Amino acid sequence: MRTLIIVAHPELASSGTQQFLRRGAELVAADWQPLSTDFNVATEQVKLRAAERIIWQFPLYWYSAPAILKAWQDQVLTSKFVLHEQGLAGKELGIVVTTDTKASDYQSGAVEQFTLAELLRPYQALANKAGLHWLPSFVINQFRYQTESQQQALLIAYQQYLTLPQPATFTQRQHWFAQQLQQMITNATGERKTQLVLVEQQLAAKQDELEELRWTIEQMRGDD
Amino acid sequence: MRTLIIVAHPELASSGTQQFLRRGAELVAADWQPLSTDFNVATEQVKLRAAERIIWQFPLYWYSAPAILKAWQDQVLTSKFVLHEQGLAGKELGIVVTTDTKASDYQSGAVEQFTLAELLRPYQALANKAGLHWLPSFVINQFRYQTESQQQALLIAYQQYLTLPQPATFTQRQHWFAQQLQQMITNATGERKTQLVLVEQQLAAKQDELEELRWTIEQMRGDD
Repeated sequence: MRTLIIVAHPELASSGTQQFLRRGAELVAADWQPLSTDFNVATEQVKLRAAERIIWQFPLYWYSAPAILKAWQDQVLTSKFVLHEQGLAGKELGIVVTTDTKASDYQSGAVEQFTLAELLRPYQALANKAGLHWLPSFVINQFRYQTESQQQALLIAYQQYLTLPQPATFTQRQHWFAQQLQQMITNATGERKTQLVLVEQQLAAKQDELEELRWTIEQMRGDD
Repeated sequence: MRTLIIVAHPELASSGTQQFLRRGAELVAADWQPLSTDFNVATEQVKLRAAERIIWQFPLYWYSAPAILKAWQDQVLTSKFVLHEQGLAGKELGIVVTTDTKASDYQSGAVEQFTLAELLRPYQALANKAGLHWLPSFVINQFRYQTESQQQALLIAYQQYLTLPQPATFTQRQHWFAQQLQQMITNATGERKTQLVLVEQQLAAKQDELEELRWTIEQMRGDD
């Protein structure tokens, strides 16, 4: 999966969230492309053509992306490129959006009144027009209030969002995790290697339990 | 009604639609403010404070305003101004949007899949957060394919959108039209004045018919 992440953040260097996500993107070899106000339209179009999955990643400013992304869209996504040449058709488009608001605020009757899916409609409409396959959005609420283990879980979910077929099944996620662990074991040495092998064995044991449980549930369903 | 029209069009001078609307705005003494990339945040906030009705007027580029408006929003609509000082609270916000697409394309199942009301949600969410009263949007579809009389009717509807309470009742629209006509008669001379007075008499006659019709309908309803 060739994933291109277009990061639209006016103060990227000072964003802890974006620096954190960047490490995750690098580990899965996704193409991390911070947007600046100075870009070349032809170069951007070449990058887009080479990608299979395109991610627009940004903090929510007044319920949409910062102006830097809109300027890029208005100039790079020409009618010629998008409509006549069908330069984006058949690729995937995902939105990674960070907000300082808690998730439950985005619903009718709550503070923000609308869901994020509703607020992101303009991007969905663009995907629709461009022949892009629209992925479920990856929403990060209040990153700075998350515990370290929540942030680690987020990083794994983010890496899976960048690389796995979307929406990913539970089995695909498990398989992905096992692969990552194998790679870590290969690269590790000494005591760390021993620890990681132990983790792997425990996961395998749990995996067996899980398979048995699943089988039992299927049998029970079959009896109905 | 102090109406401030913020016009966000990257090529304003070459837009026939915007030049046409401008004449309408001037006739009702609305404040026509074309956006440039160079603006002063404090000055913009002073203008906003002075307005009673704020209009964001733009062509739809990729299902939202051109980047020039987003840049302005991101910089002028600071948390301090909008949330702490409540600088916009109690005012009205209306969107005047032009598109090259026909109206019926904006619905589920049609080419664009979403209604314009859905696509404009980010602005509605902003209005909600800022304490702005959200007006029904004024949508102009395919201006250049309209006949001259359609364009004239549009101009009147636009002027009413800028000045009348929204949504305006039929009676308010009629009253507005009568006032405009009176003003034209006052300013006219010679044969033109005679013609305008004739129009006024015809309208008054129609008005009497209309009142009778309305009264009859009310009576019929009362009989049920």
